[in-house]
Amino acid sequence: MKLYEQTALQISERIEKGYFLVGDKLPSIRELSQSHSVSISTAQEAYRLLEDQGWAESRPKSGYYVLDRQNTPLNLPNITRPSQRPLEVTHWQEVLNLLCANYQPDSIQLSRAIPDLDAPSIKPLTKLLADINRQLPTRDLLSYETLRGSDKLRLQIARLMVDSGCQLHPDDLVITNGCQEALSSSLLALCKPGDIIAVDSPNFYGSLQIIKALGLKALEIPTHPETGISLEALELALEQWPIKALQITPTCNNPLGYTMPTEHKRKLLALTKPYDLAIIEDDIYGDLAYQSPRPPSIKSMDEEGRVLYCSSFSKTLAPGLRVGWVAPGRYLNQVMHMKYVVTASTSTQAQLGIAEFIAQGGYERHIRKMRQQYQNNRDYLIRLITEHFPDGTRMSYPLGGFVLWVELPGDIDTVEMNKRAELFNTSIAPGTLFSASGKYRNCMRLNFAQRGDERSDKAVEQLGLLAKAMIKEKQTVQ
Amino acid sequence: MKLYEQTALQISERIEKGYFLVGDKLPSIRELSQSHSVSISTAQEAYRLLEDQGWAESRPKSGYYVLDRQNTPLNLPNITRPSQRPLEVTHWQEVLNLLCANYQPDSIQLSRAIPDLDAPSIKPLTKLLADINRQLPTRDLLSYETLRGSDKLRLQIARLMVDSGCQLHPDDLVITNGCQEALSSSLLALCKPGDIIAVDSPNFYGSLQIIKALGLKALEIPTHPETGISLEALELALEQWPIKALQITPTCNNPLGYTMPTEHKRKLLALTKPYDLAIIEDDIYGDLAYQSPRPPSIKSMDEEGRVLYCSSFSKTLAPGLRVGWVAPGRYLNQVMHMKYVVTASTSTQAQLGIAEFIAQGGYERHIRKMRQQYQNNRDYLIRLITEHFPDGTRMSYPLGGFVLWVELPGDIDTVEMNKRAELFNTSIAPGTLFSASGKYRNCMRLNFAQRGDERSDKAVEQLGLLAKAMIKEKQTVQ
Ligand SMILES: Cc1ncc(COP(=O)(O)O)c(C=O)c1O
Ligand SMILES: Cc1ncc(COP(=O)(O)O)c(C=O)c1O
Repeated sequence: MKLYEQTALQISERIEKGYFLVGDKLPSIRELSQSHSVSISTAQEAYRLLEDQGWAESRPKSGYYVLDRQNTPLNLPNITRPSQRPLEVTHWQEVLNLLCANYQPDSIQLSRAIPDLDAPSIKPLTKLLADINRQLPTRDLLSYETLRGSDKLRLQIARLMVDSGCQLHPDDLVITNGCQEALSSSLLALCKPGDIIAVDSPNFYGSLQIIKALGLKALEIPTHPETGISLEALELALEQWPIKALQITPTCNNPLGYTMPTEHKRKLLALTKPYDLAIIEDDIYGDLAYQSPRPPSIKSMDEEGRVLYCSSFSKTLAPGLRVGWVAPGRYLNQVMHMKYVVTASTSTQAQLGIAEFIAQGGYERHIRKMRQQYQNNRDYLIRLITEHFPDGTRMSYPLGGFVLWVELPGDIDTVEMNKRAELFNTSIAPGTLFSASGKYRNCMRLNFAQRGDERSDKAVEQLGLLAKAMIKEKQTVQ
Repeated sequence: MKLYEQTALQISERIEKGYFLVGDKLPSIRELSQSHSVSISTAQEAYRLLEDQGWAESRPKSGYYVLDRQNTPLNLPNITRPSQRPLEVTHWQEVLNLLCANYQPDSIQLSRAIPDLDAPSIKPLTKLLADINRQLPTRDLLSYETLRGSDKLRLQIARLMVDSGCQLHPDDLVITNGCQEALSSSLLALCKPGDIIAVDSPNFYGSLQIIKALGLKALEIPTHPETGISLEALELALEQWPIKALQITPTCNNPLGYTMPTEHKRKLLALTKPYDLAIIEDDIYGDLAYQSPRPPSIKSMDEEGRVLYCSSFSKTLAPGLRVGWVAPGRYLNQVMHMKYVVTASTSTQAQLGIAEFIAQGGYERHIRKMRQQYQNNRDYLIRLITEHFPDGTRMSYPLGGFVLWVELPGDIDTVEMNKRAELFNTSIAPGTLFSASGKYRNCMRLNFAQRGDERSDKAVEQLGLLAKAMIKEKQTVQ
C-alpha cells in the first residue's frame, strides 16, 4: 500500500468510527500533511482517493467535507460480465427509436443525456451569439472556419484542459462537430472493417454504433461500477485478441457514473504500453466531476502520443451548438484527414461564441453552478429511487455528470418498460442500448440534469410502481 | 433529332446568320410555339437546350436574350482523358496545403470555392440569427436537433427542391453538416474498402478525398466541358468493372462549370438502370444556374430511389453555417445510420435561422441577385483572361456557380505556379487536386464570386504574366 493510500485509509476509518460526521469539514491539505508527516502532494493524493471512493467531497474555495455515504446506502451493481468474444454490435433500431421518439411537449424525458439548458448561467452564451451576429462582418461570420478550427477557441480549450492535467498546444487540437465526430474521426483514422475494439461495458451507444457502422467488432471488457474497466480482464483480452484500439470513458462515465481511480489510469497506460495500444479517451463529462479540481485524464499521463482525447461542450454547455474537439496525439494527421473528409469544417459562429464565453469567464462560472446542481440532483434521485423502486434494485453512485444507472431485480425487460411508461408520458434509456451483445436488459439509464419537481418526482414514483407490477406479472406467469 | 432539338437548331442558325444579334430579345415561349407550331413544352425544351449550349440566356420576368457567345470566343478544353483503371486517390497533402494555407489578410484568394459573403442580400440572415438568440428560450436554441433535422427546415427545402423538379416529402430528407457530410454519409452507407466508385473528372477534391479516406478506388470517366461525363465511356466502364456507385456533379459542375443537358441526364439514368447503379448526385451549385428556371436534377427523374441527392447552403448562402442535406432515396435508413454515427446531429441554431430566412423569401431574393452577379463576373473574368493569359489558354464556360477552369498551354505545373503567386499575394487551386491520378497539372480553378476590382484585375494580369514567364523558362531549358 502506497503512503497516500495509507493516509486515506486512516481518514476513512475515522469516518467509519464516527470521529468525523457527515457534513463535517475535514482537515485541510496542509493540516493533514503536518499531522501525518506526509508531503503536500501525498496529502492531495489521499484526498483524491477519498473523493474517488465517495468518502469526501471538495467544495471550491472551502475544503473537504465528509460525504453522506452512509445514508445513501451504496447498493451498487456488480461488476459487469459481458460476452468474452469480439461481437458485431446490434440494436441500431432501438437507438433510432430513442433518437426519433416523438415526445409530447410536456413529457418527462429521463432518456437522453441532455444537460439542464434552463440554467441562468447559460444565458450569456446566447447573448454573445446574438451580439456576434449583429456586430461582425458577414464575411467573418459566414465563411468556412479553417480545418483545425478557430485559433481563438483552440487557445481557450488548451487553457481549460490544464485542469485535467494536460499541457497541450492549440495546434494539438482539432475542432469537431461534437464529441461524436471526435470519436468517429478517431475510429476512422485507426481502423479497418473487421478490426477489434475493446470497450468498457456498458458503453455509450453512440460509440458502439460507430463500431457497428464501420464494420468493426466490439470486445466488451468487464467493468466495475466504482473503478471502471477491469485491468485484469483487459490484460487477458490483450493477450488473446489482436485488439486495434481501446475506447473508454474513464472519468464521470456514461452510463455508470464512476471515475477510474487515478492510479488505475496510470496502470492502464502501463499495461497497454507493450502493445502500443491506441486509447480513445472520451472525456465529455470530465469537467462535470463533482470534486474539484477535477480528476486527471489519461491523456495527461500519456508520454507516447497514444491517447486520442475526445470531448465536446455538449454536456457542459449546449449540445445543439455541435462543438467538440479531439487531441489525437501522434495520430493528428490521420484524424485531420478524416475530419476533413467527414464534414470539412465546423460551424464558425458557434466556435466564436463559445471562445468568447470561455474568455469572459462564463464557462467556469456555469460549470461551477452545474456541478453543484447535478450533485444535489443525484442525491435526490437516489433517495427517490430507494424509496419507490422494488427491493433488490441496485444503482450507480455517479461522481460527476447527470446520469444514473439502475439495475432492476429479476428479469424485467426495460425496452418493454419504456413502452409502457409512455402511458404516463415518461421515457427512459433501456440498458440494452449500452451493450454490443444485448446485455443489461434489466437496466436503464436515467437523466437527472433537471432539478426535481412534482411532476418528475411523480414520474419516478410511477416507474417504481411499473417495475413492481412487472415483477409481479412475471411471478404470476411462473 | 427530336422536335425540340430541331426547333432549337433553327433558332441557333438564325443567330449565327445574324438574324438575331447579341443582346436581342428572342421570341417568347408562346410566340415560338405559335410560329413553329410546337407545343409550349417543346418550346420550353428548345430554350433550355439553347441555354445549355450557351446561345441564349433567360432573364427573370423578362424572357430570353441572345448571348455574347461570339464575342467570348469559346475556347473550351478538350474532353478529359483520365486513367482508365480504378485508382487510389492521392494528393491529400496538396489539399491540406490549400485548406491550411496561411493567407495574408489582404490576399487575393482565387483558390477556394467561397461565395460572395459581402452581398447586402445575405445580411438579413445574420439579423435573423441574432434575433433567434435573443428571443428563443435557451432550451430550444441549445438542445440537440432531431437526427433527421429541423421539421421546419426540411419543409422549406422540400419546397425549394420543386425548382429542380423534385417532389419530395420532408421526411425523405436528412439534414447534414454541409454537403461534405451528405457525400461522406452516402459513401459510407454504400461502400466497403476496395469498392470502385466512378466519377466525372475533374472532380471536386472533397469527394475524391472521401474515396481515398474510406479505402475506395476512383474510376475517372472522361468528361466533356459542355455536356459532362461521357455516357459512352461510362457504359464501357460499367461493362468492364464492378462499379459500386457513381458520384457526379451534373449541374453547374465544380470545377468545369458545365450543366449536363437534360436529355443526357435522362440517358444516364437509363443506361445505369440494368446495373441498378447507385448515383450520388452533388447539386450544391444547382440553384446558382444562370438560366431560370434552373435545370432539373437527375434526382427529379429517378423513379427507383437510386439517386442519393446531396446539397447544402454553402454556395448559395454561407459555408460557415455548415448546413446541408441529403435525399438518399431507398438508402434512407443506411444514410441516417451513418449520419448519426458520424456527427449525431447538426447545429440547431443554423437550421432555425436558415429555415426562417427561406420562409421570409430571403433565399430567393439573394439567389436571384447572386446568379446575375456571378454571370456578369464570369464574362468579366473570361475577358480578362483572354486578354492577359498566354496564347493557347483554354477555359470553361460556366453556366452557373462561380468557378472557372483554366487550361494552360504546354507543360506548366500549376502547383509551382501557385507557390510563385504568393509573391503577389494571390492563390489559385491547382488542377491536380481535382484528379485521382495527378492529371490536370497544367490546369487551375479560379473563383470569380467577388466583383472584380483593381486589385483582383491586377492579380489576374500577374497570373497571366507568370504563366507566360513559366512557358518561356521551359522553352529556354529545352
Ligand atoms: C460518453 C459520450 N460521448 C459522446 C457523446 C456525444 O457527444 P456530442 O453530442 O458532443 O457529439 C455523448 C452524448 O450523449 C456521450 O454521452
Ligand atoms: C461540388 C462540391 N460538393 C461539396 C462541397 C462541400 O460543401 P460543404 O461546404 O457544404 O460541405 C463543395 C465545396 O467546395 C463542392 O464544391
